[in-house]
Amino acid sequence: MDRHNLRQPEAEVGALFVDRWSPRSFSTEELTDEQLSSLFEAARWAPSCYNEQPAHFVYARTAEDRERFCEALMDGNKVWARNAPVLLFVLTRKVFGHNGKPNRWAAFDAGSAWMSLALQARMLGLHAHAMAGFHRDKAFDILGINPEEYEVMAAVAIGRRADPSQLDEQTATKEVPNDRRPLAEVASETRLE
Amino acid sequence: MDRHNLRQPEAEVGALFVDRWSPRSFSTEELTDEQLSSLFEAARWAPSCYNEQPAHFVYARTAEDRERFCEALMDGNKVWARNAPVLLFVLTRKVFGHNGKPNRWAAFDAGSAWMSLALQARMLGLHAHAMAGFHRDKAFDILGINPEEYEVMAAVAIGRRADPSQLDEQTATKEVPNDRRPLAEVASETRLE
Repeated sequence: MDRHNLRQPEAEVGALFVDRWSPRSFSTEELTDEQLSSLFEAARWAPSCYNEQPAHFVYARTAEDRERFCEALMDGNKVWARNAPVLLFVLTRKVFGHNGKPNRWAAFDAGSAWMSLALQARMLGLHAHAMAGFHRDKAFDILGINPEEYEVMAAVAIGRRADPSQLDEQTATKEVPNDRRPLAEVASETRLE
Repeated sequence: MDRHNLRQPEAEVGALFVDRWSPRSFSTEELTDEQLSSLFEAARWAPSCYNEQPAHFVYARTAEDRERFCEALMDGNKVWARNAPVLLFVLTRKVFGHNGKPNRWAAFDAGSAWMSLALQARMLGLHAHAMAGFHRDKAFDILGINPEEYEVMAAVAIGRRADPSQLDEQTATKEVPNDRRPLAEVASETRLE
């Protein structure tokens, strides 16, 4: 467990879940092809409605491509995410392949695939930080996506964590695993409470 | 790994991801409070946009409550899911708590929380089978939910796997881990392919 991680589980749980968080201080060390394949392999086995597998990951690895992807990020994310050796967007297909009808589980199933990727990253000693802070229209442009067919759910920075001293002062204050609502608020028996 | 699981990973990946699948043959053996807490604890640490944590799990454990929950399931799921010792619905809050605006990541973030729950189930020797096959309106009624506030994303059966010989003939033919698209179709560099 990361020594900066002061999270306190309320119940017995796989360390992996508590150990996964979203740092901003990334090393520029590149990911190997094998590491990248492992991430997508984990995502691939996520379940989905009708086994549609609507999630698709579009990634950038070269400095030039990453800079281009960065253009779609909000400024607060640009400052740190440009260091990460891999940037990607999580897309999801909005209609079912078998009948062309809207897939109401498109985002939900993409969330499952993303979570698998994030946990696999942790297993490899990497971190994956998902961002909602991106310009959706710019992402569509950069990726050449038709908004009728796909939705962009998240931008993700992936890499090894670096010493947080490299962060600017404002970003550095956020460099700590965040907490959660109490366990009692996550689930309830028979009715919503 | 389950001996019925003939899935072939294309890349090095945590066994957990390949080992997770959605059986229909459940033992009636009850879950302990500790097991149930572990599942929700794993879900609790999933990341979410603005750390909103929109996912909420409403579960049934007693025979009476499970029967009531079963009423919302499609017939094809009713026949096997009623055996599982825990049935639950995955809900997601549709608006942000901090400003009341629509949360476009509500389903995506609930998918992440669900995936953590499913993987934690596997770590406990349990299986969690998510179903899209339920009547949404009935689920709202049973759970007493306001559709303006919450969406119901999935029904989930959780428990230990039982010998598949208990399944009816039609259901038994589905009792095998399903496959996935090739790894090459899950991700692409810089543009959608």
